Formats: sequence, C-alpha cells, structure tokens
Amino acid sequence: MEKIENANAESLRRMLHADPVLVDVQPAGKVIKGLGEGVILHSGPPIAWERMCGPMQGAVCGIAVFEGWADNLRQAQNAAAAGRFTFHPNHHFGAVGPMTGMTTVSQPVFIVENRAFGNRAFCTINEGLGKVMRFGGNDAEVLNRLRWIADVLGPALSAALRQCGGIPLKGLIARGLAMGDEMHQRNVACSSLFLREIAPSLAATVGGSKRLAEIFAFIAGNDQFFLNIAMAMAKAITDPAKDIAGSTVITSMCRNGADFGVQVSATGDDWFTAPVEVPTGMYFPGYSERDANPDMGDSAIVETIGLGGFAMATAPAVAGFVGGGAASEASQYTRAMYEITIGRNPDWTMPNLDYAGVPTGIDIRKVLRTGILPYINTGIAHREPGIGQVGAGIARAPLACFEQALVAVATSLGIA
Amino acid sequence: MEKIENANAESLRRMLHADPVLVDVQPAGKVIKGLGEGVILHSGPPIAWERMCGPMQGAVCGIAVFEGWADNLRQAQNAAAAGRFTFHPNHHFGAVGPMTGMTTVSQPVFIVENRAFGNRAFCTINEGLGKVMRFGGNDAEVLNRLRWIADVLGPALSAALRQCGGIPLKGLIARGLAMGDEMHQRNVACSSLFLREIAPSLAATVGGSKRLAEIFAFIAGNDQFFLNIAMAMAKAITDPAKDIAGSTVITSMCRNGADFGVQVSATGDDWFTAPVEVPTGMYFPGYSERDANPDMGDSAIVETIGLGGFAMATAPAVAGFVGGGAASEASQYTRAMYEITIGRNPDWTMPNLDYAGVPTGIDIRKVLRTGILPYINTGIAHREPGIGQVGAGIARAPLACFEQALVAVATSLGIA
Repeated sequence: MEKIENANAESLRRMLHADPVLVDVQPAGKVIKGLGEGVILHSGPPIAWERMCGPMQGAVCGIAVFEGWADNLRQAQNAAAAGRFTFHPNHHFGAVGPMTGMTTVSQPVFIVENRAFGNRAFCTINEGLGKVMRFGGNDAEVLNRLRWIADVLGPALSAALRQCGGIPLKGLIARGLAMGDEMHQRNVACSSLFLREIAPSLAATVGGSKRLAEIFAFIAGNDQFFLNIAMAMAKAITDPAKDIAGSTVITSMCRNGADFGVQVSATGDDWFTAPVEVPTGMYFPGYSERDANPDMGDSAIVETIGLGGFAMATAPAVAGFVGGGAASEASQYTRAMYEITIGRNPDWTMPNLDYAGVPTGIDIRKVLRTGILPYINTGIAHREPGIGQVGAGIARAPLACFEQALVAVATSLGIA
Repeated sequence: MEKIENANAESLRRMLHADPVLVDVQPAGKVIKGLGEGVILHSGPPIAWERMCGPMQGAVCGIAVFEGWADNLRQAQNAAAAGRFTFHPNHHFGAVGPMTGMTTVSQPVFIVENRAFGNRAFCTINEGLGKVMRFGGNDAEVLNRLRWIADVLGPALSAALRQCGGIPLKGLIARGLAMGDEMHQRNVACSSLFLREIAPSLAATVGGSKRLAEIFAFIAGNDQFFLNIAMAMAKAITDPAKDIAGSTVITSMCRNGADFGVQVSATGDDWFTAPVEVPTGMYFPGYSERDANPDMGDSAIVETIGLGGFAMATAPAVAGFVGGGAASEASQYTRAMYEITIGRNPDWTMPNLDYAGVPTGIDIRKVLRTGILPYINTGIAHREPGIGQVGAGIARAPLACFEQALVAVATSLGIA
C-alpha cells in the first residue's frame, strides 16, 4: 500500500517539522471562536451530561458558578440536567484540557503557535496539585484560585510573553528530555526551565513586588505547571498532520472518563471510541483502586507526539510514580512504543538510549498487527466530584478504537 | 585495623549527616578572617607566584586591578613578581573556588552553613561561561562583570536569602540528581531549581524592575550558576569529617594548575601533592589538547562528597560533554567509584541505578589496593591567560598523592 506509506510519511514529516512557540495567554473567549454563555468544552470525545462521570459533572458545576451562569453548585447541576449548557470536546475547537478539561469563555488559555504551519492551539493554565477543577474540585478554594489565574496570572504571563517575543518550545522540550521529564506525569525540569526563561520578562513587566512574588511562588510551587503548555504544543503539532488521505497515523488520543477516543489523520475529525479503563497505578496514602475514576483528559495528546509514556526511557524517576516498575525497566516502555510508531524524532532524544529519538507517529496498522497498545502516563482522579487526585498510573488505549479506525480508513480508500 | 575502620565510619557518618543550607551572600572580607589588602586566595594546594600557570597568573593580575591594588595588568604583574601579594589556598580559609579560584576581600561569597555541625564554608559567585576570571580572563569585560556581581548581584542574593530564611541544599541536590545533574560539569537542573526557589524572594526584595530583570537574566543565562553553591556546600560537608585520628578518608582534592593536592582526615591540613595532569576531554571548535592547561580548581570537592564524576551514572548527558564515551557507558564511572569508597549516600540516589546512593567517602587504602583513581569531571582552561575555557574533560587524581597520604596516616598511627 504505497499510498498509505506516503500518506503516513507526510503525517510524520509534518509532526517532525513543527515549530511550536508559546506566544501569548488570552481569555479563551477572545481566541477560541464559538465560546460564550453556557458553552463548555470538555476533555475527550463527545459526551452528554447524563453520561459524564462524577468528577466531570463536578467540574461542570464548578465552572458554571465560576462563569456566573449559576449562583451555586446545586443550581448549576439543575441547569446542566435541564440542558441549559452546551457541551463540546476541546478538540473540536483547537483546544485541549487535562483531566476534566473544562474550557470556558473567561478562563485564560496558553496560545501555542506552530510557526512552520501557521496554526494555533490552546490550553488553560495548570491550577496546581491537590483539590483542583481538573480533578473535579469545585469549592470556593478552587474557584478563587481560578479567579486569581484569570485576573492576575493570565494577564501577567501575556505581558511577559509579548515582551520576550514568545518562548520557542522545541529546544526547551529537548532540554527537558535530557533532564528526565516525559512531559506528562513529570514536568519538573520544563516547569523550572520555563520559569527561568520567563523570569526576566515577568520582572520587567509586572508592577508591584508583592504581586510578582505571588506569581513566582505560584509557578514555582507546581512541578506540573508546564503540562498544559506541553499539551497545547502537542495539539499545535498534531493538527497539521490531520486530513491526509490514506494516512493511518493517530492525530489524537483522549478520554472523557467514560470513553476513550481516537482520531486518525485520514478520517479527520471522526471519533473512534471504546469504554475507557481505570489506569493501573499507584495510589496516594488512604486511597485505593476502589476510589479511582476511569481515565480522563486530553493529555494523551503528548503521547501522540512521542512524549509521556512513549518517552519513559528518559524519565526513570517517573516509572515508580506511575507504578511502572523499577527505574531500570523504564526503557522497556519506550522500546515497546517503537514497535507501533513509524519514526523517531531526531530533535527530541533520550540520553539513556544513547540519544535515540522519541517514538513518533502511531500507526494503527502496527498497533493491530502487534497487539501492542499505546502507553499513557496519567493522573488518577477520585470518582466522586470535589475530592481531586488520588494517584497516578499507566493507561492503555483500547484495541477497539484502533479496529474501528482501520475499518474507517479502509472505507475511505475504497478498500473495505 | 579496627581503629581505622571506626575512624572511617565516623568520617562517613559526619558527611552523610550534614545539613547544608545556603544562608547568605556577603563580601569575603566580612566573613573570612585574614583577608585584606594584597591577600589572594587561590585554588589547589599552596603555590608561589613563580610556579603559577598562565591562567592563574592572569587571574591574579586581574583580581589585583579589580581590588584597586594595581592600576593595570602590567603593574599588577610587577607587584606579584616583587612579592607584594600574599597567596594562600582557599582551603586554609574555609573557602573553595573553581578553576583559578581567586577569592579576595571585596568579592561576594556564598555562605553555606552546615546546620548539623555549626560550621560554614564559602565560595564566590559563578561569573558565567566564556571569558571569565576563573579561566584566566582579566580584561575590562571580566572586571566589569565582577563589579556588577559585587555591587548588584551579591547584595540582592543576600537580601533574598535572608528574606526566605535560606535554601536547604540536601533535598535540592537530591532533585538535581534525579534530573541528570552531577553538579560539576552539569548544573542545569540545580541552577534552574535554585532560580525557581529564590525567585519569589528576589521579587519581594529587589527594588526596580529593570534591576530585577537584569538579575534574573544573569542567573538564567548560566547553566553552571549552581556549581559554586555546590562547591561551598561540599566544603561545608567535608570540613567536619576532618581531623579524625586514624581516618583514611579523603577530605579534599584540588588542583592549582601545577600540583594536585589531597587532604586526608587523619592528618588534617597536611597536603599530599603530585604534578597535575591535563584532563582527557573534548575541545570546543578551534582548540585542541595543545591549548590545554593542566587541571585547576577546588571544584573536585564535589567528587569528594560523591558528586561530579562519582555520580556520572545519573548524568548520561554529561558523559559525552566530558569525553566519557556513550551515554549508556556513564554508569561505569560510578560503578568504578564504588570500588574506592566506603559508603553510599541514601539521601542522594540515582534513578538510573535503581536509586543506589552516590559513592561516598574515598578511602586511600581502597585507591591503593585497587589502583582505581578518582574520576573528576572538569573544565579545561587555555594555557595562556585571558582566553578562557577551551573544553571539558575527565581528570584523574595522581596515585602519588595517595601513596604519600597512606605513609603519613601510618606514621600518625605509629605504624610506619
């Protein structure tokens, strides 16, 4: 099938030649068309209110209060049940969001521009760890933090990014990989490098030393701060690889807490879904698998470009955190992912594998031929709304998604 | 020799139980007794002006002009040759310095307090890369930078460190090790973590956004910024391990560009020296081994506590930089160092070796028994003054130092 090989090569070429730059932070409503009152973007493939899991319903209620569409959580829940909100996947709007993935009009979003192809992608700002909206948190503490992010942090990051002309991400990720980040469950290096890079511009543009100190303390207090930037970057990288006739390369993987969804280049925005599993992982003290929600979030977009579970070899410290076994076994995950990908990224290399590039371009044919499913390093949310993260683990993309996708691509080529 | 075993165990215990905290930055003259006009501390064991190598003589002339003891380099050289300066090793004053290691009255120094034992150690602030005084640079650019460090950076760091109550270093090093730093030729993680940790306090205490931006840009522009903090920390850790009767554990290794010097716990401040070698390494474009100066600096104090070449396993990215072979071979260096040390540091572990602790406590008996010499990851200076760094490599401590040391310890025990 030369046509498929050529199409796949083109998908890979577009991913490898991306030039993602973090250019700005703006309120989502200003940069994402179609947002407005009652419109809520969520993670994963499409889902109706009734089928949403506990933490996602909790986040919906919280964000409705945050946006002023309801006075309290109870009212928000009634409004949702009465169909007064419109739900869409982030992916339909050039956006991505971690875990519950709420994106609404007033929230500031990172804007990553792919300068090689001229497209842009968006992701909200990471709220930190513990009780946060992405894990279903929705009380006053959570909403006040979101307000501070919207009123103080977002505008400050915007001014700083404009002052320095944006932060190119390709080289930053390369450095982060050499420092043990896989950019999904471990972002300590990139979060630190990001702060280091933007610090002079923040200092030059933020008025008031108290406010500036607060901003630094917030960013510095969160090892996962960079995750949302990595996600927007990954979305900016995968979007140009879409819609190539015959390409069997995956362009997105995501979960909404009920379904796992996959998109393939040849079939554009079509979703191939299957029930999502509970990750296999490690739980924080006091929690167990009984508390766990099935996997959630658009964050598997980082695996789609060869990071996260695919780059585990470079991040031995994350292997234990996600229950992936001994540090010395971390490279086995990456080696398995080479079996289902069509290339290696020469710009993103792993010292532990003597500078082999990360496995890039998941080919659904290779997944089906080998039976090897993509590894996704993920956080685990409590199944009840309002509690938050209870662990971290490894999720596998379900085989059924890839089976459906192959049939659809074959049909599009007139083969099936 | 039960006495030796017990003494060594006590040396190791003191090193492992250290609690180093970066507490302040002050002008050297304020905190190091005995500094004053014409007094110059240098790296390595004692050395007279006539025997100093090119870059060290260059640095002496530069620092004399910086301190106002001479109007220009020529005058400074004449003053040095006429014996008008007094030279001492940093190590005699609780201090350490990288490469040429100039420490004089007006230069600000990091102060690391070992809270478990109450002692303090000192090191100047890293100037950055390229043409700098520690590599023998001495022109107006170099001296102006030193003035800015003394007038602006030092006082700012002092205020920030006092505001935040100091930065504990033990945990920070642990994180850096998990991020691929060995804290000698690779400090990118710890430099970033340091900036991240001190940023809120700098923001709160530095007046003027332009000045603050300048400070952030300076620190952020130097991946090796943390080296000098690591060195002061290592000195603060090794000093309490000194003067234990019968202990054959190394308490310092250093080089002055002519001699390699070693100190052993049992014999306190006595030096055991031998000619220092040119490191085996990699050269920057346009330079070769012909340009290289023999090894210099007190920086091998980090190897003395199990970092640098001893922790190469955790820093595969540095192996190539210092000419240590493939990244996958990095752990061989650490494995060899286990052969000549008496313990492992349980707080400083390496994911790549499934969280084995770094090799700690070099035993001169083990060095002599195995013939395995300590590995030191080092920078390479040009042999002429004023040029700067030309490469990086691996140096070995000379066997003769250890032979002399063993005889001296044996004599101290009445055995020889």
